[in-house]
Amino acid sequence: MFDPSLAGKAAENLKALRDKKPLIHNMTNYVVMNTTANALLACGASPVMAHAQEEVEEMVSFAGALVLNIGTLTPYWIDSMLKAGKRANELNIPIILDPVGSGATKLRTNSAKRLMDELNIAVVRGNASEVLSLAHEGSRTKGVDTIHSVDEAADAGIALSQELDATLAITGAVDLVTYGGRICMVHNGHELMRYVTGTGCMATALIGAFLAVDKNPVEAAATALAYFGLAGETAATHAQAPGSFQAALIDALFTLDENHLKQGVKIQV
Amino acid sequence: MFDPSLAGKAAENLKALRDKKPLIHNMTNYVVMNTTANALLACGASPVMAHAQEEVEEMVSFAGALVLNIGTLTPYWIDSMLKAGKRANELNIPIILDPVGSGATKLRTNSAKRLMDELNIAVVRGNASEVLSLAHEGSRTKGVDTIHSVDEAADAGIALSQELDATLAITGAVDLVTYGGRICMVHNGHELMRYVTGTGCMATALIGAFLAVDKNPVEAAATALAYFGLAGETAATHAQAPGSFQAALIDALFTLDENHLKQGVKIQV
Amino acid sequence: MFDPSLAGKAAENLKALRDKKPLIHNMTNYVVMNTTANALLACGASPVMAHAQEEVEEMVSFAGALVLNIGTLTPYWIDSMLKAGKRANELNIPIILDPVGSGATKLRTNSAKRLMDELNIAVVRGNASEVLSLAHEGSRTKGVDTIHSVDEAADAGIALSQELDATLAITGAVDLVTYGGRICMVHNGHELMRYVTGTGCMATALIGAFLAVDKNPVEAAATALAYFGLAGETAATHAQAPGSFQAALIDALFTLDENHLKQGVKIQV
Repeated sequence: MFDPSLAGKAAENLKALRDKKPLIHNMTNYVVMNTTANALLACGASPVMAHAQEEVEEMVSFAGALVLNIGTLTPYWIDSMLKAGKRANELNIPIILDPVGSGATKLRTNSAKRLMDELNIAVVRGNASEVLSLAHEGSRTKGVDTIHSVDEAADAGIALSQELDATLAITGAVDLVTYGGRICMVHNGHELMRYVTGTGCMATALIGAFLAVDKNPVEAAATALAYFGLAGETAATHAQAPGSFQAALIDALFTLDENHLKQGVKIQV
Repeated sequence: MFDPSLAGKAAENLKALRDKKPLIHNMTNYVVMNTTANALLACGASPVMAHAQEEVEEMVSFAGALVLNIGTLTPYWIDSMLKAGKRANELNIPIILDPVGSGATKLRTNSAKRLMDELNIAVVRGNASEVLSLAHEGSRTKGVDTIHSVDEAADAGIALSQELDATLAITGAVDLVTYGGRICMVHNGHELMRYVTGTGCMATALIGAFLAVDKNPVEAAATALAYFGLAGETAATHAQAPGSFQAALIDALFTLDENHLKQGVKIQV
Repeated sequence: MFDPSLAGKAAENLKALRDKKPLIHNMTNYVVMNTTANALLACGASPVMAHAQEEVEEMVSFAGALVLNIGTLTPYWIDSMLKAGKRANELNIPIILDPVGSGATKLRTNSAKRLMDELNIAVVRGNASEVLSLAHEGSRTKGVDTIHSVDEAADAGIALSQELDATLAITGAVDLVTYGGRICMVHNGHELMRYVTGTGCMATALIGAFLAVDKNPVEAAATALAYFGLAGETAATHAQAPGSFQAALIDALFTLDENHLKQGVKIQV
């Protein structure tokens, strides 16, 4: 049922990350900066946070991937993201976008769409309603705003991925990753992850790290989400409430090794 | 000695929160955004952080309560708070204000007073010196700035609550909640809470959550503070130093149930 | 091999900190604000974060030390730091600078140098490449940018300290503290500290706290780093992965007492 070659790919990606320790440039929200940085350190990457318009183009040029997250956006931050993103595109540095809250306010929806329009985004990671909010006017997926489960969203996801020409990683109880008609369903994860703030944002940052070592965005996203979900499962064997679970989750990202991934990754193709 | 009906109310409020999962819109300081969000998730609420002037009016319209905290204020943030607060008032969404550091600098005192003047604030939560700093010039409570214990502050609190026409929640070793001549003293809590940054701000956010399900601001504030204090007591049975205590505090907010509250809440009327 | 009088000085400084509870004014990066505040509370100090240009001069006037950290800088924040720093200099309040990422981008290098030029900085804390990036054009230490170990950096550090007329605290596997030809090597610490984001920034803030009670900047910096390193060693006896280690590190800062410091501090002169 689960693809063993993708479990092997997850192990390979984690090894590559720990060997190469790529710099991941994060432009993310205030709420999750600390936990995102700790998740990236735990997986083997090297995080940096920088958002000043005077330095983002220079900073991103050292990076293996650029993470854009609009969770506490202002117009200044969006302009900085566009500057960094355009430079990243020139240098073929992959960009991942987390459209936090897109669909909830006009500022968020318009900003997420503008980033999609003006930049070449490798992967978009969000929940179903955030990702579907990115559809163009007149899109086949317009009017499916009430689809909020991963199962229901599969068809819409494939269509939207073609429309936006980006890999979509739609996370929920089961995660859906799709591009070019290909679909991966990631069955790792644990219920307690919903009770820790920023687990979605941590997932996005980890996909960024995996993109720095895996040029296939569908496989980078699916293996990163499986690794993160497996860390959640591992953490739940040590902690049963969200405060201690948050620490156990970072611990698990650090202690999981290639063998754990070969055994535990559950990606369905 | 302790009022059993308010212990029952605390249990009811927690149940309502977990049933309704209200969105709580936080405009708070950078230091506590992560722990505040985790406290809100642990109690059953759904936190969102948004401060851009382009979106706060839209975002607050979905919320069950608005939390304003001036801990790392700038004039931009105060203007955003005024925008969000005016919209909240139009929609009868309750507002709680945490005047962090009011009395310490002119910017903080003036900003807190401006928020009090221009908005209809349901509850103000602060320590004694912060809350007393909000008194008008010529107030009966002016000149009592040296009162820094809850016991000494009771009379001043009642007078100031009338003057400001808001429920005051003055926290310390014992918490005082007062409005309209009514006083509740909350005897839950633990000494270690003082050694974790942002416990005051977490208390404020939890009162915000309780306001979303309890239209009586004195009872919402008193029961929220009792629940938080009881979580501190519970955490202290698991952890004796502030790093592990912080995780145990979030754990306790998550694991405490209605029965724990009925048994453990200590509100004196 | 290790200087017992400096171990005694570390114990004295910790005691003074817990007796006097000095206010430490932090202007630091978003990533570490929460953990920095918790580290300061755990050691006995009283942290405040404030960056608005309207209040920093007033706020710093109450402080025992000013911590400047450029980790998520913008020009606005640098201007605020200059305002606060000039007032601190007038009042003889010691300043510590953490030039995060100096050498990586022009904005960071130029901002760090500007703070060094316009303010009287007591201590600079950074890794070797950050600290060496502060050298003037034509400096004897220019061209040593490839020196990234503390051992190799010792000679350059002594020269640069003279050139900049500031105590340098260059942290790594072994920490080097130098001013006026004097050198202290701090041998406390643990490998896991590298896997927790912001441990460098926490070290900087703790040096700030020690500066508030010890007017000798070399001894304040060396004893603070030894205390922090010893806390890391203690934490590693309780936790073997970075999530739980972060909590254990704060716990250890809180539980370490004067006797632990007298026994465990390893400063080589």
